[in-house]
Amino acid sequence: MLVVLTGGTGGAKLIKGLSHEVDATELTIICNTADDFALHGLNISPDLDTIMYTLAGVSDSAKGWGIQDDTFRVLAQLEKLGAEAWFKLGDRDIATHIIRTHLLRAGLRLSDVTDRLRTHLGVKATILPMSDDEIETRVETAEGEISFQEYFVKQRWQPEVKRVFYAGVERSRAAPGVLEALCDAEKIVVCPSNPVTSIGPILAIPGVRNAITETKAHVVGVSPMIGESAISGPAHKFMAAQGMSPSAFGVANGYADFLDQLVIDREDERLREKIEALGIKVVATSVVMKTLDDKRRLAGEVLALFEK
Amino acid sequence: MLVVLTGGTGGAKLIKGLSHEVDATELTIICNTADDFALHGLNISPDLDTIMYTLAGVSDSAKGWGIQDDTFRVLAQLEKLGAEAWFKLGDRDIATHIIRTHLLRAGLRLSDVTDRLRTHLGVKATILPMSDDEIETRVETAEGEISFQEYFVKQRWQPEVKRVFYAGVERSRAAPGVLEALCDAEKIVVCPSNPVTSIGPILAIPGVRNAITETKAHVVGVSPMIGESAISGPAHKFMAAQGMSPSAFGVANGYADFLDQLVIDREDERLREKIEALGIKVVATSVVMKTLDDKRRLAGEVLALFEK
Repeated sequence: MLVVLTGGTGGAKLIKGLSHEVDATELTIICNTADDFALHGLNISPDLDTIMYTLAGVSDSAKGWGIQDDTFRVLAQLEKLGAEAWFKLGDRDIATHIIRTHLLRAGLRLSDVTDRLRTHLGVKATILPMSDDEIETRVETAEGEISFQEYFVKQRWQPEVKRVFYAGVERSRAAPGVLEALCDAEKIVVCPSNPVTSIGPILAIPGVRNAITETKAHVVGVSPMIGESAISGPAHKFMAAQGMSPSAFGVANGYADFLDQLVIDREDERLREKIEALGIKVVATSVVMKTLDDKRRLAGEVLALFEK
Repeated sequence: MLVVLTGGTGGAKLIKGLSHEVDATELTIICNTADDFALHGLNISPDLDTIMYTLAGVSDSAKGWGIQDDTFRVLAQLEKLGAEAWFKLGDRDIATHIIRTHLLRAGLRLSDVTDRLRTHLGVKATILPMSDDEIETRVETAEGEISFQEYFVKQRWQPEVKRVFYAGVERSRAAPGVLEALCDAEKIVVCPSNPVTSIGPILAIPGVRNAITETKAHVVGVSPMIGESAISGPAHKFMAAQGMSPSAFGVANGYADFLDQLVIDREDERLREKIEALGIKVVATSVVMKTLDDKRRLAGEVLALFEK
């Protein structure tokens, strides 16, 4: 059984590759939900949806979010009716949010809703939200405290990040199956996702960090960093704000209590010794995934580490 | 000031005509909301929307509901995700329901929401929902009690109607402005809408029937019936179930306490004497409205009655 911890875009690329290399029924994905938010009264789970669409083969891999060839008729009309339109919701994507909102209001848990949605989309892998409880990544900037989506999408991750915290995480519980999956796993992959806003919230849920530290599984991470920048997105800004080195070393250091191996980019070869001093074995390759071939190649290299 | 009582389709045709013949700011429309329902967690107000789209010039007059040239991408995806798709929601139409649901949940009244929506759509006429309270037309058939939309759309108005009632109407209140509009009006038009499921609920709200009976305004109705059938839809079935004669006479008899004049079809000329015996003056013309010219012609004839 392969268990994968992930956020959205970056993680989705590796998961796309993994889904080509392993049997889907062997795959359990634990997904960040701290970027979830409500817009126009709809409950939106950006990372869950990106992973779900990726595994269903309908994701827009060029944009990194949404459904391929989606249209934006509803959004255009929402704007006409006076609503804000900074978050680009496609028409078919909106159907997901309508169903999710409806089922959550009817009393279902996010994990049940996610399972129902992925089943209808023909996804065979298990997708677990990290929690059924509301946890929200809050970003402190010079202009005030905002949600992750406001920072990331509305403000195009431009303001300086002063601090990040996960509102609600202390009293949250891991969703059904999450701790069990981590304990029972033989293989765990930590995706090349933002260590602060994607993997961080998962690890902050009471019991999760302990489970992944105590598990008998081999734990392999993939660095989302090359040099001092994230391959995409603002991970380096968040790492710096949290006092982490914005680099593959910072990732390794943040995961040092549970990581057995870290896959880094060849360009970061100079960090090998420093990372291995943390007790983490380093594998250097190319961690950039542009094409499907890249994704399958990197996924294959990650999977090979479990065989040794 | 012209005040109009209406349901959806049939009423919308006359209102289309009226909107060409009078200044929109002089027009106050009191609209049935007893067919409102929730689907996929969205609050849908079919009659309000038909009237609003009609006055905004975006209604699909061929279908009699929805927005012209609308697409159905969301609906197709909702169906894929396991939802029922018997009620045809267009993409742009769904934007209306998303906003309405969002604002109602935020605590706004339906009348406030309606006013905001029609303003964004550029509608100058005042559109008042009959009530801000939930009132639901329930239909008793041989197979059990169902909502009006289930009867009308899902079951294509085929089951025999045994009884109709307006759940919640006893403890409801007319929406702000409704009683005032009826009292202050100089002219009131009762549209050619279903007397049982469109006009009936409005009249059943405490205070409304009294207001329209006591008003100093001249009250003109337009018959939705020709012979023993409604021009469109199942009005005759509902009238028969309620013990009313399914005819223009039945309409007149149902409105006898407040109607000054009734416009009927020439084919129903034989009913003139019987209707006038109720104290209602009869005008016979063609009440079929297929083209915009028909709508304007009938609207003009109705308006002319107020001048005499």
